[in-house]
Amino acid sequence: MDISRRGKTIQASPIRKFKPLADAAVARGLRVLFINIGDPDIPTPRPILDAVHEFDQEILSYGPAQGFLELRQAVAAYFGSYKIPLTEDNIIITTGGSEAVFFAFCAVADPGDEVIIPEPFYTNYNGFASLADIKIVPLTLKADDGFRLPPTAEFEARITPRTRAVVLCSPNNPTGTVYTPEELDRVGALVKKHNLFLIGDEVYKEFTYEGLVHKSILELSGLEDNVIVTDSVSKRFSSCGARIGAFVTRNERVLEAALRFAQARLCPPSIEQKAALAAYRMGIDFFKPIREEYERRRNVLFEGVSSIPGTLVLKPQGAFYMVVRLPIKDADHFVAWMLTEFELDGQTVMVAPGPGFYSTPGRGLDEVRMAYVLNEKDLREAVRVLRAGLEKYRKLFP
Amino acid sequence: MDISRRGKTIQASPIRKFKPLADAAVARGLRVLFINIGDPDIPTPRPILDAVHEFDQEILSYGPAQGFLELRQAVAAYFGSYKIPLTEDNIIITTGGSEAVFFAFCAVADPGDEVIIPEPFYTNYNGFASLADIKIVPLTLKADDGFRLPPTAEFEARITPRTRAVVLCSPNNPTGTVYTPEELDRVGALVKKHNLFLIGDEVYKEFTYEGLVHKSILELSGLEDNVIVTDSVSKRFSSCGARIGAFVTRNERVLEAALRFAQARLCPPSIEQKAALAAYRMGIDFFKPIREEYERRRNVLFEGVSSIPGTLVLKPQGAFYMVVRLPIKDADHFVAWMLTEFELDGQTVMVAPGPGFYSTPGRGLDEVRMAYVLNEKDLREAVRVLRAGLEKYRKLFP
Repeated sequence: MDISRRGKTIQASPIRKFKPLADAAVARGLRVLFINIGDPDIPTPRPILDAVHEFDQEILSYGPAQGFLELRQAVAAYFGSYKIPLTEDNIIITTGGSEAVFFAFCAVADPGDEVIIPEPFYTNYNGFASLADIKIVPLTLKADDGFRLPPTAEFEARITPRTRAVVLCSPNNPTGTVYTPEELDRVGALVKKHNLFLIGDEVYKEFTYEGLVHKSILELSGLEDNVIVTDSVSKRFSSCGARIGAFVTRNERVLEAALRFAQARLCPPSIEQKAALAAYRMGIDFFKPIREEYERRRNVLFEGVSSIPGTLVLKPQGAFYMVVRLPIKDADHFVAWMLTEFELDGQTVMVAPGPGFYSTPGRGLDEVRMAYVLNEKDLREAVRVLRAGLEKYRKLFP
Repeated sequence: MDISRRGKTIQASPIRKFKPLADAAVARGLRVLFINIGDPDIPTPRPILDAVHEFDQEILSYGPAQGFLELRQAVAAYFGSYKIPLTEDNIIITTGGSEAVFFAFCAVADPGDEVIIPEPFYTNYNGFASLADIKIVPLTLKADDGFRLPPTAEFEARITPRTRAVVLCSPNNPTGTVYTPEELDRVGALVKKHNLFLIGDEVYKEFTYEGLVHKSILELSGLEDNVIVTDSVSKRFSSCGARIGAFVTRNERVLEAALRFAQARLCPPSIEQKAALAAYRMGIDFFKPIREEYERRRNVLFEGVSSIPGTLVLKPQGAFYMVVRLPIKDADHFVAWMLTEFELDGQTVMVAPGPGFYSTPGRGLDEVRMAYVLNEKDLREAVRVLRAGLEKYRKLFP
């Protein structure tokens, strides 16, 4: 009795597959500096936790499939703060940004259909594509080009009769690039011309540095029917475990499909919706000191990693990740080795291996993703441990 | 620009599609007695809400993809209380029983594959089948036969090379039947013979009346590799809004696939997992008074509805639903009419139209599902209003 093809072929999360090795390292008494996953150490803002503690329903009953009205209004107001006019009718609350991505894939594509995604990309798109049984057509970006979007012709070379959408993540996980208005306009014209959907993963909207401002694909004019944005409270409010996100579009037929998908799973979690409401009611200014903290961390990790011999890394413009080219041949092997064979003063470092962020086989073997989600002191320590680890690793595996 | 086929064809939830009419009735000042949806009015047990109020993480960070270890252990212990030996390794915590059903479909079937489900069935299986792009092959049960499972030959007549699983829900939503050990053994032998999976939705396990004991498909011997059970805290602990469920199997390859599906969406909601832990730690005896309450309600609703002229209803053995045949020709029309045109002393009743519980077109037109999730007084009132409504409706639409 065989399991399904999708069950067999879905990738194990490259950011989670070495978790057992990390657990074993911790069990051996090592301190593991986790910069593999985007799980921030910034305390969850007080109003969010207060809302949890003050949860006052007597019966934890089903909520509306599209999420609580107040929360949808608060999310609309949040976009309004960025001069993006939306109403609650444009918004479906989802169980994490994850579910919003899955709904977007299912709303625009059927099994065998294709979506074009610049790679490296957020690795879990692969998982949702497997579940939805759609095909990700990668468009490989290069570190040497600053991971910028290629000319329109390169997108067009990948369009087939089955192409349904282009997916853009900006600020980008894992590269840290923030697409320029010119890049967005170019892709906007492309999807318009070829009658495609444009799905934007914009969960790192506020995470931009040196005064750079993120432009949303919701701001592109004339693309009201093409654009779907997936959003999440996870990073913005240090609330990854809340599993509250949003599916945003002005296309009524897409909304209707997503609402039916939402009805199948009844509703998003109630308590965390109340917490998210408190989060959005803080307004967007609460984020300023957090952005400054991440900018300092970015500088520490970027400068530290750049100074390690043999590395290549671009200074990220946004999000809290960087893709680092290392003087290694097999990132999976290196990551496992760091967790099982290496330690410095009772510490080691966990990073995410590069190949998981590509769907083209063989790409990213000498790359890793690092997340600057620890405080500056720990990041400096991570760089020191990584430098020593790499030096030893290169002698053993030249 | 067109949306996907699955986006176009997925059914609107028949238990939720009349929600706007109900909202409008409430807005007009009517009291609507909701017996359309299984959203219990039993207060959520105190330890669950206490756990929410005492949630003590400073950072609402990602949890493990398979759920918190303590919760998986508690769920294993819960099954142990019913003499079903499991370990935490057999259990993946899901975002509601909904996600467990979806994972089960995706783990055993690919687009175009088939699962056999006796109908009427829990309507949201349709939604998950659309999302997973698999085909539900219905096996129509009849009220006149007590909604019992038909002879094996009727199952076998529906098996094709694409059949991957049989899905059984017991105690059953919407019929209220509890399958006998003989029925389960018969289906067990069938799936064994034809090398199929057997998916059991057992979220109403404790909801059995008159001393009847539910047998789980996990208790069938020799079927360790075939059986997947989906479970949920929603009904058992009056915690529908928590969105915590479980995916249970002893098949290691199925578990591995489900874990990868789980990794794609990162983790189930954290706060509700802590609440669910408190729930499971109450032990199974807490349920006894709740069962007695539901048994009283069942008796009230059953006796009341039976006494309305022209109805046919079986006394349910379990869960908290009953399928009622009414002297009408179009259940959708009747449900809408009750919400828009009828009232008695400022009240009306909302029930769920029958066709949504069938995938065979044309079935269930004269049936509705009722849920005895209100207290006895309100149920008596619902019967009174329904009786008057039906009388008037039959005169208008004979």
